[in-house]
Amino acid sequence: MITNPHAADLAHHVVIVGGGFGGLYAAKALGKSPVRVTLIDKRNFHLFQPLLYQVATGTVSPADISSPLRLVLKKQKNVQVILDEVTDINPDAKTVHLKDGDLQYDSLIVATGVSHHYFGNDQWESQAPGLKTVEDALEIRRRIFLAFEAAEKESDPVKRRAWLTFAIVGGGPTGVELAGAIAEIAHSALKQDFRTIDTTQTQILLIEGLDRILPPYPPELSAKAQKSLEKLGVTVQTQSMVTAVEPGCVQIRQGETALTLETRTVLWAAGVKASHLGAVLRDRAGAELDRAGRVIVEPDLSLAQYPDIFVIGDLAHYGHQGDPRERTHRPLPGIAPVAMQQGQYMAKLIPARLAGKTTGNFHYLDLGKLAVIGQNAAVVDLGIIQFSGFIAWLIWVFAHIYYLIEFDNKFVVMFQWGWNYFTRGRGARLITGESVLPLIRELEPPERARVS
Amino acid sequence: MITNPHAADLAHHVVIVGGGFGGLYAAKALGKSPVRVTLIDKRNFHLFQPLLYQVATGTVSPADISSPLRLVLKKQKNVQVILDEVTDINPDAKTVHLKDGDLQYDSLIVATGVSHHYFGNDQWESQAPGLKTVEDALEIRRRIFLAFEAAEKESDPVKRRAWLTFAIVGGGPTGVELAGAIAEIAHSALKQDFRTIDTTQTQILLIEGLDRILPPYPPELSAKAQKSLEKLGVTVQTQSMVTAVEPGCVQIRQGETALTLETRTVLWAAGVKASHLGAVLRDRAGAELDRAGRVIVEPDLSLAQYPDIFVIGDLAHYGHQGDPRERTHRPLPGIAPVAMQQGQYMAKLIPARLAGKTTGNFHYLDLGKLAVIGQNAAVVDLGIIQFSGFIAWLIWVFAHIYYLIEFDNKFVVMFQWGWNYFTRGRGARLITGESVLPLIRELEPPERARVS
Repeated sequence: MITNPHAADLAHHVVIVGGGFGGLYAAKALGKSPVRVTLIDKRNFHLFQPLLYQVATGTVSPADISSPLRLVLKKQKNVQVILDEVTDINPDAKTVHLKDGDLQYDSLIVATGVSHHYFGNDQWESQAPGLKTVEDALEIRRRIFLAFEAAEKESDPVKRRAWLTFAIVGGGPTGVELAGAIAEIAHSALKQDFRTIDTTQTQILLIEGLDRILPPYPPELSAKAQKSLEKLGVTVQTQSMVTAVEPGCVQIRQGETALTLETRTVLWAAGVKASHLGAVLRDRAGAELDRAGRVIVEPDLSLAQYPDIFVIGDLAHYGHQGDPRERTHRPLPGIAPVAMQQGQYMAKLIPARLAGKTTGNFHYLDLGKLAVIGQNAAVVDLGIIQFSGFIAWLIWVFAHIYYLIEFDNKFVVMFQWGWNYFTRGRGARLITGESVLPLIRELEPPERARVS
Repeated sequence: MITNPHAADLAHHVVIVGGGFGGLYAAKALGKSPVRVTLIDKRNFHLFQPLLYQVATGTVSPADISSPLRLVLKKQKNVQVILDEVTDINPDAKTVHLKDGDLQYDSLIVATGVSHHYFGNDQWESQAPGLKTVEDALEIRRRIFLAFEAAEKESDPVKRRAWLTFAIVGGGPTGVELAGAIAEIAHSALKQDFRTIDTTQTQILLIEGLDRILPPYPPELSAKAQKSLEKLGVTVQTQSMVTAVEPGCVQIRQGETALTLETRTVLWAAGVKASHLGAVLRDRAGAELDRAGRVIVEPDLSLAQYPDIFVIGDLAHYGHQGDPRERTHRPLPGIAPVAMQQGQYMAKLIPARLAGKTTGNFHYLDLGKLAVIGQNAAVVDLGIIQFSGFIAWLIWVFAHIYYLIEFDNKFVVMFQWGWNYFTRGRGARLITGESVLPLIRELEPPERARVS
């Protein structure tokens, strides 16, 4: 494995695994420290995941919300980016094993996040894709827009109805954002585009197991979000468990009642599963994991038995800071601001340790929670004060523009948003991937496929 | 198959196959005629192919140069868009056979264009992808940017050199555009991004079989284009035939000399092959084909034996109009302006025929040829006058913006171009597709793959 000639004289080598919010903020902040840094990611770009649902619903393109890692870090000459994947870690030899070789570290930061989780029903994945990667988003986009295309060609009203029914499983921010965006597609963007179907007849169901959507928010905001969604044309089903996802339908249990919903499009926005490096750290470094497989970390984000290994971002279970509003000691939520602050904390802790100094424990500064419902509607929880509606939407827009611009000067996205806002367009609704037509059949229930 | 309720009272049914420049301009123009129109395409968008090389080289996203067909045609209520693929045509029964049913027509317009052609060496395709679809462009983008990633990790200087060598086969406009853009990536956009490789050492070869690049242009413009490319860092090899494309190398014959070029990235920009509907029209409707498989059409673009079937765009061989400058009767070139004018001609001819009137033969109004070499450099041939350099580049930019805006108001692209022009950025350089790492190995020659 090659080494960075720009940092050959720097003795301490920090290896960061993962270029998400945690890893990238750590790399950027460590760019000013007297250490040599290697950032490893299997992708060559950082993905601004909070806007991924906009790729899935045809508002923006993947590149609009992605920043090439090398571009973001080009001025940090002590940081080298390597496109590779970590398969194993040896904490005693202080090496990470990559697909293309081994790498020695002095400090290791693991920030590989989480993916979606089907609660032991992995066979549902092909019927109900989740939203974590660019490829996921393009697959969801393809399914949403193909459903309208198939409905336009379908002459049987029952089958047409199933194509025009969308089920979103999970009432967290992603599920709410997807449901709101699909409602806007059906009721506004596509309204004039078809000749035989009326897209405003589309049914959109948001299915949540608990008694309200957006459970981490105050109940009043959940109620307002539900109202806003219903105004957009979404049917919210709380206290509803999905018991099966099959080609052409979803089985739902509401208390004692079992329902069958005929739908050709099911999207998964429930449940997260920790990256496989969590289990590697358990097996190799004795790390303790929580139920979701996240690594329980010390107050300085390190492992109890290996203080030179740190876990940050969604993969970390940080239970040392209670939410004073909740009066409980739940772990910090898996959201971008937590990961960013943990990444920046690394750039304080590691140089301080090298200089023989101490730093305080990590402390998350909570700036509030945001979730968007649709054009002009969002909910914002700033702790002391809550907003919903247009003001909340403006706060949401500016917060996201601020972070996008910080990285990569993505003025283009701002411009695109402004443009879409006034035209209500969905220009990025390309159905891509080699074979489009087979998919329509693939999404059809087996009876129909046999007939045609 | 469903019919368009908005046009139920219109008796004459025009079926258009293909939503490229020819088919879409025909559909748009027929939107004002008293006919019912069905446009069939296997994709849900029109692709602005002249800018596809910019997707392949990471300047813009696919959606930036694509327009949803339904969006473009949403106000033409007599036009219905169907996502499907034509597999057969029955000219006596006047039906087209789709993957999802049959469709009756009164007039049929076939505009399914051409794809790339390996001169009988289809096994080269996996090593040397061509550039016709969005998927092709994303595959090329992936290979270009992966090559730099692999070079950064490679410690063997010979292998590193092969990763930093790019061969483009074919010196037409696409080959010239790709070579110029890759040179700009290597010499400018990526310059500061890597730590162990110097991207300005990249070798870019443009391989052309004839004695000059851009053969349809006047020789002086070809010479100027070659000079501009060389200034950007491209090596132009004319009178060079590719005799083999293998993993890790390309075999080239220059007169009596045989050369082997070690390279991991070969891009194909030579040769076109007609859509399979050309052969269908030969077998079913007695159409005559040229050597490339294009359909030789009558002066009104119809078939000799079936005056209700028309072929337009790249799939048509129109030999009834000589280029006065060339003093020959070569067919019209396969470029967007020819296809657009042929599409618009359809909207004159068909309503005139229905009204029992006659129209003159199709006549192409030649507005000139454009090819871009890089930022600030292009060649423009307006017949009486030729340009090259910055003025030519400005003409190229404005011509393309004009056509993009006509469709879909893609101000965003204009904005993106302006932004890129000043920042020289390549923000859309995402490497996408499920498995990134296997591809590096896949692109390596077999010896290496066996070792690792």
